[in-house]
Amino acid sequence: MSIDVIAPTDNSAATALTEAEIFDAHQGGKLSVTSTVPLSNKRDLSIAYTPGVAEVSRAIHNNPELAKTLTWAQRLVVVVSDGTAVLGLGNIGAAASLPVMEGKSALFKTFGELDSIPLVLNTTDVDEIVETLVRLRPSFGAVNLEDISAPRCFELEEKLIEALDCPVMHDDQHGTAVVVLAALTNAAKVTGRELADLRVVVSGAGAAGIAVAEILLAAGITDVVLLDSKGVINRERADIAADPQSKKSQMAGRSNPRSVTGGPGEALLGADVFIGVSSSKLDEAHLKLMNADSIVFALSNPDPEVLPEVAAKYAAVVATGRSDFPNQINNVLAFPGIFRGALDAGARRITPAMKLAAARAIAELAEADLSVDYIVPSPLDPRVAPAVTAAVAAAVEAE
Amino acid sequence: MSIDVIAPTDNSAATALTEAEIFDAHQGGKLSVTSTVPLSNKRDLSIAYTPGVAEVSRAIHNNPELAKTLTWAQRLVVVVSDGTAVLGLGNIGAAASLPVMEGKSALFKTFGELDSIPLVLNTTDVDEIVETLVRLRPSFGAVNLEDISAPRCFELEEKLIEALDCPVMHDDQHGTAVVVLAALTNAAKVTGRELADLRVVVSGAGAAGIAVAEILLAAGITDVVLLDSKGVINRERADIAADPQSKKSQMAGRSNPRSVTGGPGEALLGADVFIGVSSSKLDEAHLKLMNADSIVFALSNPDPEVLPEVAAKYAAVVATGRSDFPNQINNVLAFPGIFRGALDAGARRITPAMKLAAARAIAELAEADLSVDYIVPSPLDPRVAPAVTAAVAAAVEAE
Repeated sequence: MSIDVIAPTDNSAATALTEAEIFDAHQGGKLSVTSTVPLSNKRDLSIAYTPGVAEVSRAIHNNPELAKTLTWAQRLVVVVSDGTAVLGLGNIGAAASLPVMEGKSALFKTFGELDSIPLVLNTTDVDEIVETLVRLRPSFGAVNLEDISAPRCFELEEKLIEALDCPVMHDDQHGTAVVVLAALTNAAKVTGRELADLRVVVSGAGAAGIAVAEILLAAGITDVVLLDSKGVINRERADIAADPQSKKSQMAGRSNPRSVTGGPGEALLGADVFIGVSSSKLDEAHLKLMNADSIVFALSNPDPEVLPEVAAKYAAVVATGRSDFPNQINNVLAFPGIFRGALDAGARRITPAMKLAAARAIAELAEADLSVDYIVPSPLDPRVAPAVTAAVAAAVEAE
Repeated sequence: MSIDVIAPTDNSAATALTEAEIFDAHQGGKLSVTSTVPLSNKRDLSIAYTPGVAEVSRAIHNNPELAKTLTWAQRLVVVVSDGTAVLGLGNIGAAASLPVMEGKSALFKTFGELDSIPLVLNTTDVDEIVETLVRLRPSFGAVNLEDISAPRCFELEEKLIEALDCPVMHDDQHGTAVVVLAALTNAAKVTGRELADLRVVVSGAGAAGIAVAEILLAAGITDVVLLDSKGVINRERADIAADPQSKKSQMAGRSNPRSVTGGPGEALLGADVFIGVSSSKLDEAHLKLMNADSIVFALSNPDPEVLPEVAAKYAAVVATGRSDFPNQINNVLAFPGIFRGALDAGARRITPAMKLAAARAIAELAEADLSVDYIVPSPLDPRVAPAVTAAVAAAVEAE
């Protein structure tokens, strides 16, 4: 069986992937640990192990700050998942999520030059995950949360940020949000609009949807309307009102300034931007209700909310999460540089200012060649991670 | 300041180590994670990450056995410590122990071709350490416990073996025991004795001492007498009788068949073998009490229980843990091959038979060139890990 997802956009994807090709590449996993010191004679052994290493351990015991330079931990990102929300597969458990986490660790190294290991957990209890990482704290330097289901992911991230004195980021939330903001910044520019004036509809109020709404508000966009499977998110909806501590309820109080009610039709009437981060389909009838020269980001993977050829009948700019269409909105543009910048600058938290700086850096790299088909750089553009790193580190300095 | 531990035995150790040399080698730590798959074009990304990886995750979800071949976990050894008994430094804590654990992981790769990561824990509670590793179970394939204080190390290892369906070994116990047995096998041979007839005194009843006594009994030696700081371990001693569940008390019931009482003098009178695995000194007056052509393993590091030149006045064979004297008894001879053999053979536990097979394999490699100054191969001998691997895997098959 062939998996017909990759069509030709660069030569490497000119033919469809085959299962054999995918499974061959995964034999034995995708990561390897190597020694950065030689171990080929007695002197090497005496330096890297006993007795020499005792001097290093003693030095760290006397001055714990030295752990930052004399171990690998300070530069090590743990990719943590409980396997509850894996890609399009849902709750498949920790063991089955591991290939995704290995891939993520491989991307950290390839794009961010950071060491990274996957830690997948056989528990879905938020407090147990926090407790586990607190116990392991001396082993790593930052935490990338991955594929953890909403709304647990919000609570987990918040508790971990409180419990750990190191950068923690749930990439499905914030990596997505950063790249969406970068893309939207350039989509506004290429269609001659001001970012702050946009009317935006976000379809999906899970991890990505909430975080996208958050960053758009932080970037100065005021008219953001969220949709979930029950329709427009507003304070009057019974399920929202009933759970005032939920992220949806909090977001209902901060978004939707025109107090829109109803469903996708009501939300999209007069909207400039559709951002899809759920699997809900976008009807062509609803697309027609948007303003002229609209912007459509259909980011659901592998099946976008609307196919680009349909969206293009109405929209001036169309983006997806896929590599076989123009304007691929891919988290790999953001997370390697965000973590690298945070660690380079010694940041203890990843702040809104750091995320905004990352989005700006990504957007700026596409500016010189801006077009409706080029609003973000390619995920493989080697300029991206260094630019994001520098911008994030500068944001840390400025704070 | 120079650290004058390494003297010339191979050219590499011809001059003393300097602090600068040790600390330079440790900058940034000693491990690196790399991707084993290419990530240089869109096709690579589509295979190793989305969308291709979803096929692999789905396959593991449908058939959990596939995690053994399609992830790195099955070949990954976690080196776990709470930093309570680090080298000669004692309880220095998890963060300060990390350079030792990084070194151990580097040795696993260099000698056993196994991937390995250090996990150091900010808790010394046995049940919390077990709980943490149970939660992380899908992330790894085997557990090497390291530098954990006695008697907690016994309880921790037992509980982990019960809780985890993968190989678990406390190397300070069993790695040491295996290499001691290998060395003693050849020391008996070179002095014309039968292993089973030896009268052995083990000085030290902590992690290493108990495990050494265990393996000697398993190898058929009946006359084993243990010493701790209070003297000979026997059932009549008040502190031993008072704690019948302790390892010392259990060992008192299985060792010391002549019911020796007293101290080192009483223990060593008529003994053939002294094995030191504590920091207690061995007096020359007590050495004199041993049988002619005795065997002395003074394994305390960096200061042996007795200096080799003193021991050699009485003993036919002298071994230490140091690289600057002949007959270095070093765990690196054992642990890479033991774990590699266990994982190659799909063993769920590391059994006494596997440890005996490892000891035999190490001993056999030195047989062709056997002399009083060559009873074990060099830690750098490239034949060792493959031979131990094969012997351990064969022992698994035989069981």
